[in-house]
Amino acid sequence: MILIGLDPGLGCTGWGVIAAEGNRLRHIANGQVRTDVKAELASRLLHLHDRLFEVIAEHRPVAAAVEEVFVNDNGQSTLKLGHARGVLLLVAARSGLPVGEYSPSLVKKAVVGTGGADKAQVHAMVSRLLPGIKIAGADAGDALAVAITHAHHLGTRRALGLTVA
Amino acid sequence: MILIGLDPGLGCTGWGVIAAEGNRLRHIANGQVRTDVKAELASRLLHLHDRLFEVIAEHRPVAAAVEEVFVNDNGQSTLKLGHARGVLLLVAARSGLPVGEYSPSLVKKAVVGTGGADKAQVHAMVSRLLPGIKIAGADAGDALAVAITHAHHLGTRRALGLTVA
Repeated sequence: MILIGLDPGLGCTGWGVIAAEGNRLRHIANGQVRTDVKAELASRLLHLHDRLFEVIAEHRPVAAAVEEVFVNDNGQSTLKLGHARGVLLLVAARSGLPVGEYSPSLVKKAVVGTGGADKAQVHAMVSRLLPGIKIAGADAGDALAVAITHAHHLGTRRALGLTVA
Repeated sequence: MILIGLDPGLGCTGWGVIAAEGNRLRHIANGQVRTDVKAELASRLLHLHDRLFEVIAEHRPVAAAVEEVFVNDNGQSTLKLGHARGVLLLVAARSGLPVGEYSPSLVKKAVVGTGGADKAQVHAMVSRLLPGIKIAGADAGDALAVAITHAHHLGTRRALGLTVA
């Protein structure tokens, strides 16, 4: 079962594709989509959409997982992040993928074992769970962590005899 | 020159299509896209995308205008609005339309003459500028006001000898 994890950001969105075979995880690909800060907002969103659409078409995941975002006091940055995240969810839906959503603390707990883990611990554990991987950057590392979380979640559902994606 | 105005909302997005011929405005169509509050977020965004894509394909505007949104203290509602607005901008960009963005106060000023006008005044003026129109609802009325604002803006640019959409 191939899964894609996505870490939303208008300036830089991370993505990570893994294969989950029973309890085994395997890295397939990861990367980051950057958008030009000088371009118009609609063009930046179009670039994000088109690039992620290509990634999904190339690797053919059967499900997507997107990190829930931290809503901070800066309304403008929340709004920007919302624009990017809306496009990510749309790309997954247009590609026919069911979408799981996980909070950052749940991702940390699933990958490291504690919801209070820092980014370095998360990325170290991603590298350990997917041996030999070269992580494209911090956002790609976060996206891989979301994909791993989704794999655990779907694995648990399967073990319990529930429907999985 | 056919223009589409959009008023973003996750639960209900308004749209309004007008023709601007010199100083004359003519109503073409208006409506609202509602999404099912019980559906998953990605499905709601997909519905919004698909429906607006159809509206644009049917009426073939040459430019779009989207209202800038009021960022309030409720981060979660700002985020939701951001998701919907991101999808609107994306639909316009995917349809090859340049996108103008206008603040609510600028829209009020363009349509009514004062940035502090209330919704009822805006809708009354929309009805006067587009005689015989039946407005589908409050969000469609706002979308038509944005389209009218864009027509004024492009008309001014043309009068000044600047490039228009």
